[in-house]
Amino acid sequence: MSERHVVIIGGGLVGSLTACYLAKRGWTVDLYEKRQDTRMQQHGSFGENRSINLAISERGLAALRRLDPALEAQAKALVIPMRGRMIHALDGHQSSQAYDIFGKHINSVSRSELIKLLLDEAESYPGVKLHFGYEFITADFDTGRVVLQDADHGGRNERCEQGRVIVNADLIVGADGAFSRVRQRMMAKVMMNYSQTYIEHGYCELSMEPRNGNFAISPDHLHIWPRGSFMLIALPNLDKSFTCTLFMPWQQFDSIKCDADIVALFRAHFPDALHLIGEKKLCAEFAANPKGSLMYVKCLPLTYKGRVVILGDAAHAMVPFYGQGMNCGFEDVEVLDRTMVEALQNANASSERTADLSNHLLRCALDKYSATRSVDTSAIVDLALENYIEMRAKVVDLRYLTRRFLEGLLYRMFPQHIVPLYSMISFTSIPYADVVARWNRQSMYLCRSVKAASLAAAFGIGLLSARLLGLRLPSLSEIARIVIRKD
Amino acid sequence: MSERHVVIIGGGLVGSLTACYLAKRGWTVDLYEKRQDTRMQQHGSFGENRSINLAISERGLAALRRLDPALEAQAKALVIPMRGRMIHALDGHQSSQAYDIFGKHINSVSRSELIKLLLDEAESYPGVKLHFGYEFITADFDTGRVVLQDADHGGRNERCEQGRVIVNADLIVGADGAFSRVRQRMMAKVMMNYSQTYIEHGYCELSMEPRNGNFAISPDHLHIWPRGSFMLIALPNLDKSFTCTLFMPWQQFDSIKCDADIVALFRAHFPDALHLIGEKKLCAEFAANPKGSLMYVKCLPLTYKGRVVILGDAAHAMVPFYGQGMNCGFEDVEVLDRTMVEALQNANASSERTADLSNHLLRCALDKYSATRSVDTSAIVDLALENYIEMRAKVVDLRYLTRRFLEGLLYRMFPQHIVPLYSMISFTSIPYADVVARWNRQSMYLCRSVKAASLAAAFGIGLLSARLLGLRLPSLSEIARIVIRKD
Repeated sequence: MSERHVVIIGGGLVGSLTACYLAKRGWTVDLYEKRQDTRMQQHGSFGENRSINLAISERGLAALRRLDPALEAQAKALVIPMRGRMIHALDGHQSSQAYDIFGKHINSVSRSELIKLLLDEAESYPGVKLHFGYEFITADFDTGRVVLQDADHGGRNERCEQGRVIVNADLIVGADGAFSRVRQRMMAKVMMNYSQTYIEHGYCELSMEPRNGNFAISPDHLHIWPRGSFMLIALPNLDKSFTCTLFMPWQQFDSIKCDADIVALFRAHFPDALHLIGEKKLCAEFAANPKGSLMYVKCLPLTYKGRVVILGDAAHAMVPFYGQGMNCGFEDVEVLDRTMVEALQNANASSERTADLSNHLLRCALDKYSATRSVDTSAIVDLALENYIEMRAKVVDLRYLTRRFLEGLLYRMFPQHIVPLYSMISFTSIPYADVVARWNRQSMYLCRSVKAASLAAAFGIGLLSARLLGLRLPSLSEIARIVIRKD
Repeated sequence: MSERHVVIIGGGLVGSLTACYLAKRGWTVDLYEKRQDTRMQQHGSFGENRSINLAISERGLAALRRLDPALEAQAKALVIPMRGRMIHALDGHQSSQAYDIFGKHINSVSRSELIKLLLDEAESYPGVKLHFGYEFITADFDTGRVVLQDADHGGRNERCEQGRVIVNADLIVGADGAFSRVRQRMMAKVMMNYSQTYIEHGYCELSMEPRNGNFAISPDHLHIWPRGSFMLIALPNLDKSFTCTLFMPWQQFDSIKCDADIVALFRAHFPDALHLIGEKKLCAEFAANPKGSLMYVKCLPLTYKGRVVILGDAAHAMVPFYGQGMNCGFEDVEVLDRTMVEALQNANASSERTADLSNHLLRCALDKYSATRSVDTSAIVDLALENYIEMRAKVVDLRYLTRRFLEGLLYRMFPQHIVPLYSMISFTSIPYADVVARWNRQSMYLCRSVKAASLAAAFGIGLLSARLLGLRLPSLSEIARIVIRKD
């Protein structure tokens, strides 16, 4: 088979992992990234409004592992395990809620460090070329002709020929984020069901420096200050600082006009965080740092005729409250790889060189990927949205805590049968949609069990009371009659 | 006040009506339409995949009336009233279902004739200039700078300066249809919630010629051949022909490979229509005519900072099954005009020259339009989708017909209180969302009334039977005890 060429648009986390996977499978890879090489930037800088804080969990790690166990190990060296949530009450009291009774954990990791690792890994494959500062302009998806523009030679709206690059691709991967232009171009070609929805909350990042050379608060936790309609969270960094994110409704952001307003907000709702961040730093950062919007995207199909596929945020941007955005994007790449390798195996090929797939088989594989993966990504997009309410309000709700306790108990007793939702999402690779289906079944059983247990308890108490009062008890046949009649 | 300039993108039905309204209110209007002047085209030609068949009803007519009662009269001269649905059974039996027991009706009208009327009307205002063959390229929504391209001088992707037109607008109206570029540009500027959804059915238009110089079937009806998962409909034209539209799932379209297949489909499901259309014509038209897709769009906001507004399909494309697409678009224009005139009146202006609105007041008016109108357009988009099931399946369902009969009876008895959904949508100007709310209330009452009537009847029969059998009847106090205990 002649050389197969893939053009990847977007050199973020998902784009660079895709480059690695396809290079490993024999593809010649050209990756084009709009921004300059982030590896040149200073550590920890705020890159274009993107959070530098991420949590990597099982799905993300599994995707690295399948590519190369050594890569997973390298990634793990960059993380700080977070074993639970630390809930900060208004009076400063902290209470820890473990993520998993068996000690499983998620991991705080810096976006820029992880990208650096993946870009270095991609470049280690001889078939990969990375091109920075190139913007995707348009593409003919039927012929595979892709038009790019060197950012140094005039922006997109300029009509200059200079810096214009044209490449021909057998496969085009859109890993260009929530506002994907590859997706936009695809919408003009296929009947795409598409929705984008903004939530009415925005966010702003703040930083909490180390205290006396150490973490100011427990580094083993994802810290949450849940305040009902808004919240503050904090994730640890390797340099012993924390990155805090304030999530709140836009109108609340709009009501903060000056330094005194933001200090007043923190004094009223996050007094301990105010103390740890410092008034001066809070004011400076709140004024300087961008206020980000939060939106989610669903679309279908995710591919076009075996020629184009969109991955990561381009296919399913989600709100960040389940910590699954990147993990889901990494899993996309893994699932796509599995689907392509399976297509090879079904054709009795002995290798895993997906670059050898015929056009027909590649198209079948991409079609299958689109149909199955979109069900799972849609499920996690919904869960991420629901988890916002859990994080900012429910974590201090008694009913929520009771259920959590019961579920934990059952999980410990029957770890094969009752697994909490959070654990299935964060610590397994069960497809997202299957997780939701299983969770719904579990909830039904849980609900029935609680009802049955209450009934049994009530019956027992009734029996006992009757005996104590010396009442005549109905015979079994009488009870049967009553029960049958009732039904 | 100096001259206020509006640029309208799109010279279809909604764009041309907007031109009239704004010109009447003192605006200088430049309207740019991508296609050439449709008034030059032959009558009845299929214009770019758009149906030539439309139904205009109260909302559409009311919008024309508010602009100029003479215009409404001119439009009415172009229509053929359709007083009901004519249901064609498989055996050829036809049964008529009146749209309204008081004789109200919808009106079949040719798209091209109506556009011609509106473009002529727009041109009659001295402030209006129509530009055909100009494509919208981009706009700076903050400054109002709009870039257009003369289609005769290279298409959109060419980078030639020739034929490039730049205009400055105080207000930009996007009336450029379901795939609106103005909306797309707006999405890059504001946090727009947006969704587009394709249904799994497509359509193909066919024509039924007059027979012996007259309509082949009743011209007073919208004809329906409901067949469950698919259907054929037919609307009368002034030249005594009918335009038929076949709606069916894409996979059913895909299964038709040759002339014999389409003839077989018609012979099995629409034998009377096959006879009237003719085998040869059916085959020729089915092969030649485009197969259209059906989608709906919802978005919010509909405006940008008092500078841009999207109207018609650009704001709320819908499936055609309630005959409300154009009517809703016309109503958009009317509601926008009312909102702007109200803003003037609230500022104690004596005129209705909305061109005199200050920037601030214009922005407030547009914001208000967006917030209120989007609720109504969202409601009709949903209703249009639901009505597809009604048209292709429910119209022959016994439960549906029973409810329809009962409702008709109550409508005749209490025309102020019980109005069928179809009548509220098609024969009133009650805001769509209010219609839905009222309909839900009515349904609840109807349901309760039927239950009460059934109970009363059962009680009566019971009483009668008991007397006939000579049984002792319980006393009132006994009944009261039973009833109370039961509750």
